[in-house]
Amino acid sequence: MGLPMATNLIRAGYLVSVFSRTRERAEPLIREGATWCASPKAVAESTDVVISIVSDSPDVEEVYFDAHGVCEGIKPDGLCIDMSTIAPDVARAVAERLRERGGAFLDAPVSGGQAGAESGKLTIMVGGEAAMFGRAAAVMGCYSKSVQLMGPVGAGQLTKMVNQICIAGLVQGLAEGLRFAEAAELDAKAVAEVISKGAAQSWQMDNRAETMIDGKFDFGFAVDWMRKDLGFCLEEARRLGISIPVAELVDGFYGEVQEMGGGRWDTSSLIARLCAASRG
Amino acid sequence: MGLPMATNLIRAGYLVSVFSRTRERAEPLIREGATWCASPKAVAESTDVVISIVSDSPDVEEVYFDAHGVCEGIKPDGLCIDMSTIAPDVARAVAERLRERGGAFLDAPVSGGQAGAESGKLTIMVGGEAAMFGRAAAVMGCYSKSVQLMGPVGAGQLTKMVNQICIAGLVQGLAEGLRFAEAAELDAKAVAEVISKGAAQSWQMDNRAETMIDGKFDFGFAVDWMRKDLGFCLEEARRLGISIPVAELVDGFYGEVQEMGGGRWDTSSLIARLCAASRG
Repeated sequence: MGLPMATNLIRAGYLVSVFSRTRERAEPLIREGATWCASPKAVAESTDVVISIVSDSPDVEEVYFDAHGVCEGIKPDGLCIDMSTIAPDVARAVAERLRERGGAFLDAPVSGGQAGAESGKLTIMVGGEAAMFGRAAAVMGCYSKSVQLMGPVGAGQLTKMVNQICIAGLVQGLAEGLRFAEAAELDAKAVAEVISKGAAQSWQMDNRAETMIDGKFDFGFAVDWMRKDLGFCLEEARRLGISIPVAELVDGFYGEVQEMGGGRWDTSSLIARLCAASRG
Repeated sequence: MGLPMATNLIRAGYLVSVFSRTRERAEPLIREGATWCASPKAVAESTDVVISIVSDSPDVEEVYFDAHGVCEGIKPDGLCIDMSTIAPDVARAVAERLRERGGAFLDAPVSGGQAGAESGKLTIMVGGEAAMFGRAAAVMGCYSKSVQLMGPVGAGQLTKMVNQICIAGLVQGLAEGLRFAEAAELDAKAVAEVISKGAAQSWQMDNRAETMIDGKFDFGFAVDWMRKDLGFCLEEARRLGISIPVAELVDGFYGEVQEMGGGRWDTSSLIARLCAASRG
């Protein structure tokens, strides 16, 4: 997702320096006018605002804490924005290290996926100081339709977790409903069309019911990433001393989808597990 | 809900005969011009289209099968429409008895609640024969925004079950998400506002997140009725040989809400159970 986001920044007139672990990935950006940097440190040395987006907490630690990481190159008053979905503790640790070196940090996970990044319509949930949010909002506005400050560092990640917890129950409920419709020999697409007019309506029903009924999952937000995110949710819930039983159950169901070979399938593939379960 | 529905029929110009177990309940209709009948049988004798709406399967059996029930009075070619949410088997049994006596039957459960009945904007899911649906659609159109034929007798009930299964997972996911937001010391209303722009959006989030956060449940669709409906869903799922694990889990959670004294609370009160669980 970094590619379309950086492309939108260049097209909005920003001077962009770029580093990627796989240089070929950055070639389209270099052709658009970005300057190649040999390390995250070199990026930090050359810019006022550093934006990172990687897969998971250890990747963020590597990008920021390595000998050639962002923290080694951060300018005085440099601002870093991490768009990855990671553990809030890691976001806080990065913020702390940067603060020691005179920099600042915002955690800013996104929702809206690859399509949202390309069309510049991501939703961004931000944690950090209000003054830093003010500096960053215009930059992030180049690739988002909504950028909101949710609280101190970590609050962006916590907000993203709420999003994923809601989706877990919602998608499983939808999957059970559609599976029931098929088993009861109803026209499941007609059922979704009718009930989407009322209290069962959801973005998932409007955008995923048809593909779920057709068994198409080769797009969207991958089960592997959803499991990673639900892992953060469950860990944080334990820390907070609260119970999120359906999120926990659905996390296990996603584990079964992975075992079916569906790690890269869209999260709506929970229905494939239900269909397999009743055949098995 | 029979009162606003019948009121809408009278105002649309239909001649309405009415029976209610509690006569006072019918007084407002009689003042609007409805004719009082002493029994369901008397209603059936006086009209071409009989419409019933009661609480549960045994009530429907009483209205249709009693010595003074609809089946005893049904006219040749009389058409009965039952708007109650009941077991599909009971709907099929009523249809069979009416057929023996020359009548016809549609099961037509609704969604949209009291407010939908009053504003004439219910969604109606119908099971029965296409020709009978054609006769009935104009009548039901007086109090609905959408009337859809979903299949043979029972299909209306089965469609309503899909609706309730979807809602069960959806509302529990939303409750877990909002509970997590509060425990994480986020502004839960702000979180709902932000994530409702994306893939976690639902009618429930748009219409219930705020009242859930405020702990207000004295409105809407009661837990007691939801449990009745989920009971039908679970029984039918067993019959179909499929698993709907989250619906089953949430049915138990609603049982706990009933034990908390929340039988008449709105279905969104699942969050009250989560809050009580983490305090307890």
